[in-house]
Amino acid sequence: MSANTISVFGLGGLNEIGKNMYAIEYNDNIFVIDCGNKFPDENFLGIDLIIPDITYLLENKDKVKALIITHGHEDHIGATPYFLKKLNVPVYATRFTLGLVELKLKEHKILRETELIEVNPDSNLEFDQISVSFFKVSHSIPDCLGIVFKTPEGNIVHTGDFKFDLTPANDRKSDIHKMAEIGKEGVLLLLSESTNAERPGLTPSEQMVGEHVIEAFTKAKGKVIISTFASNIHRVQQIVDAAKRTNRKLVLLGRSMLNVVDVAMQHGYLDVPDGMLIEQDQINEFAPENVTILCTGSQGEPLAALSRLSTGNFRGVEVLPGDTVIFAAGPIPGNEKNVSKIVNNLFSLGAKVVYGSESSKGLHVSGHGYQEDLKLMLTFMQPKYFIPIHGEYRMLHQHCLLAESIGVAKENTFIIDNGDVVDIESTIARQTRKIPAGNTYVDGIGIDDVGEIVLRDRKKLSEDGMLVIVLTMSKTEKKLISAPDTISRGFVYMRESEQLIEDVNNLITRTVMGQQKSNENSWGAIKQDIRKSVGKYIFNQTKKKPMILPIIIEV
Amino acid sequence: MSANTISVFGLGGLNEIGKNMYAIEYNDNIFVIDCGNKFPDENFLGIDLIIPDITYLLENKDKVKALIITHGHEDHIGATPYFLKKLNVPVYATRFTLGLVELKLKEHKILRETELIEVNPDSNLEFDQISVSFFKVSHSIPDCLGIVFKTPEGNIVHTGDFKFDLTPANDRKSDIHKMAEIGKEGVLLLLSESTNAERPGLTPSEQMVGEHVIEAFTKAKGKVIISTFASNIHRVQQIVDAAKRTNRKLVLLGRSMLNVVDVAMQHGYLDVPDGMLIEQDQINEFAPENVTILCTGSQGEPLAALSRLSTGNFRGVEVLPGDTVIFAAGPIPGNEKNVSKIVNNLFSLGAKVVYGSESSKGLHVSGHGYQEDLKLMLTFMQPKYFIPIHGEYRMLHQHCLLAESIGVAKENTFIIDNGDVVDIESTIARQTRKIPAGNTYVDGIGIDDVGEIVLRDRKKLSEDGMLVIVLTMSKTEKKLISAPDTISRGFVYMRESEQLIEDVNNLITRTVMGQQKSNENSWGAIKQDIRKSVGKYIFNQTKKKPMILPIIIEV
Repeated sequence: MSANTISVFGLGGLNEIGKNMYAIEYNDNIFVIDCGNKFPDENFLGIDLIIPDITYLLENKDKVKALIITHGHEDHIGATPYFLKKLNVPVYATRFTLGLVELKLKEHKILRETELIEVNPDSNLEFDQISVSFFKVSHSIPDCLGIVFKTPEGNIVHTGDFKFDLTPANDRKSDIHKMAEIGKEGVLLLLSESTNAERPGLTPSEQMVGEHVIEAFTKAKGKVIISTFASNIHRVQQIVDAAKRTNRKLVLLGRSMLNVVDVAMQHGYLDVPDGMLIEQDQINEFAPENVTILCTGSQGEPLAALSRLSTGNFRGVEVLPGDTVIFAAGPIPGNEKNVSKIVNNLFSLGAKVVYGSESSKGLHVSGHGYQEDLKLMLTFMQPKYFIPIHGEYRMLHQHCLLAESIGVAKENTFIIDNGDVVDIESTIARQTRKIPAGNTYVDGIGIDDVGEIVLRDRKKLSEDGMLVIVLTMSKTEKKLISAPDTISRGFVYMRESEQLIEDVNNLITRTVMGQQKSNENSWGAIKQDIRKSVGKYIFNQTKKKPMILPIIIEV
Repeated sequence: MSANTISVFGLGGLNEIGKNMYAIEYNDNIFVIDCGNKFPDENFLGIDLIIPDITYLLENKDKVKALIITHGHEDHIGATPYFLKKLNVPVYATRFTLGLVELKLKEHKILRETELIEVNPDSNLEFDQISVSFFKVSHSIPDCLGIVFKTPEGNIVHTGDFKFDLTPANDRKSDIHKMAEIGKEGVLLLLSESTNAERPGLTPSEQMVGEHVIEAFTKAKGKVIISTFASNIHRVQQIVDAAKRTNRKLVLLGRSMLNVVDVAMQHGYLDVPDGMLIEQDQINEFAPENVTILCTGSQGEPLAALSRLSTGNFRGVEVLPGDTVIFAAGPIPGNEKNVSKIVNNLFSLGAKVVYGSESSKGLHVSGHGYQEDLKLMLTFMQPKYFIPIHGEYRMLHQHCLLAESIGVAKENTFIIDNGDVVDIESTIARQTRKIPAGNTYVDGIGIDDVGEIVLRDRKKLSEDGMLVIVLTMSKTEKKLISAPDTISRGFVYMRESEQLIEDVNNLITRTVMGQQKSNENSWGAIKQDIRKSVGKYIFNQTKKKPMILPIIIEV
């Protein structure tokens, strides 16, 4: 790669939903955009979080000038504490985003040593050879940015997450005039988010949700319990407004709801009338029809407030017959089953439940632009090159088709994976090389102390459990001193499988004696032999494949 | 419970989707309806199948007169081999259903000792005091039945799974005249399926799918690869018809597709033109535009044909740029992620993919009646009592509201759980008692050798792995002979955690020595102490909770 090449890559967010992290490199500058996490699915047993592998950035530590964050969703800020512990660079973001980042840094006790720099849509940052400016976009959280990097080779635009909402709940529209100007000035490369690239049409406006919330509140007879994403402050505002109109006090339940609402009120993003907020132990001082509970757990998270309410395990707060429970958020793919469990439980408590794709129509709109939104962005920017970001392959693929439909040349669109680098040299873009990229696992306190082997072991243990076989052997004569000791966990009930265990022990004794007759009686060979013969025997008898762990004690 | 009481209960299918099994008991007769399995979700680690707990039936073995099966879906026949091995009673079903049951019994080598009795919608079976007759219903598999039990106390109707399709693909309509007669004669109790009780309207007709399949075939340029449920023979017929119209040969891929199509052709349920079926190794003898591949895997099953095609792992068959892949089945809730992976892979192979709720509109219709279908059945039957079956609580709940809406008294509807018994005595129904019911796990060959404790162990092992600690202790002096031996699997990388393991070993040595000073130095107490102190230490250091398994070797 020669001088004056612009290199663009992602370390997360490509061919996946989550852990967004993109970067622009130009000579001695690297700008990192976003620093998100991803929540593990059932294939990542026991893992708490997945974050981007930043090996490349650590190898080029001195070049990294800034972490710029487009907005405060977890898939854009969730990895910040882990990132900043390894790479302490200044963080640029808007006020609300910084408020949420601060919560995380506080929790990880690194707030004081981090340099946080507030920007707004009008900010202009000058770095060596490159200037960075912003434009306002609408999304499902306040204070979102798109970013423009002006380089000597041309301008690069990163959209952040966005939709075009011409009547947003809070009156803060996307700045489409500025977008038009940016496009007119010329865009060499556009990186645009692809979440809803498969959905035709234009995203509905958030205002629609407000109308349906008020309708649901008006019909409700007892308490209203309503759940949504804590970070969707526009929606929270509409819920506050509905509570006000129907003369209800407001109780907040769930740690993230309390935290985020606190940040939003502090910085003036949320307007709650004086005296409306009450504590949960005051609920019984008011008639049910004068109470709204706003809580976390709309995605069915088993430990969140709504799940605990649905099973009667939230101390001091009860869901009673006649109460109305509203899901003001659709289930994210993968969460349907957990949401379903909660709905079943709420119905069995006698509550009226407003949920699901049929009945909640109007109680949720997406924060990500549909096809027409994406085409509008592409049309404003009219880029020479296009890289769809933030989505699975099928979304990136559809987004490229949209780009072609508005006139981007097919050969100028790049579907890339995490770690693929697009180099632009003398305004010619090519994707030829790769840098390291992948998943870093956070499990408990440890970062990266769990890897593929540990996960493979967990997977094996989870399927058929294990058998530990302890052999006490004489060091000098290399023979068994007593009968083998076999212990199983997660395999079968020991009590009901005594015969099997006895057969296994006999088999082991025979195996070890067979070994002693041959010449290769090293401990390793004995263990290997036991794993093989016991594994085969157990599979034939039970069709199960527990992990077999022979342990030899030398005496 | 006195004589002449009709008792009705479910052993599976209530408050869940899957493992359907219902029963009617009257004096010395028990009739079992359906015998399904359920596929385990990620909470049932390593389990292959979940089947009903039939303890109650085994305790009343002599009363069980028949297993009557409404239709051949897995959630209605999947447990038959396991059931019949324990309770060998005659099985009554239609020809197609028996064909599918036979496949299972053959595999389990119990076909010869089972009495299979073919019935049709006009059959009438006479048992002691009770006669059993049937009525034809439409569903997404051929040859489906509803059942009428005529008892001296009144008639009980079980709908099976159904929808009303007035233009079915195969011209075999629900027999609504007979339903009307049954209702007119009087129904004491109706049990009706609830899968789509939440969806307003009437289910679309299967014919609509046919039209869209032909459209997709006509547009396709290369090979057509199409996937649907093997058992949906009506849809398979429409795919065959589309292949015929577009002059394509047909290749079947996937074991269940081959098996079910074979049964369907044998018994005259499927009409494939002579010479249309070719083997997979003949594909290359034809131009791509003359080939259709019909395969399993529409739900994203990782081992099914479509998944293997999407990753290039199906020997001898390739998906090439220009091929069209059609998902002629919507994803069942919970399968979205697996389907999504396959779609991503197929796009990256360059195929055109027709999938998902937006684009596949028209390429799938449900086999389960929506609200208007359910109301039509309720209206035909005009039952005195109503028990919604086959669904989660929220569906059962909605179905009761539908029953009320057509005039069933609210107090005459019963939402019951598996094991709850509704007793009807002198035409008065009450739900007061329970019998045993629950999940029986099939894991490998074993039935019920895995239970809650084994599953709990697997869960724990899957989350943070384990530490095995071997202590070699002197039998006489009860003291450590050598340093403890600690082995971890699925916890952390041993190599990178040497210090931690060393600290643990030191801690164990101290713990054991502390024990020896006290008087309670039984092996059990020592193990208990180690589990506690090591568990606490590790949690403080890592925030992980591996299973800790101390093993004491006495020498």
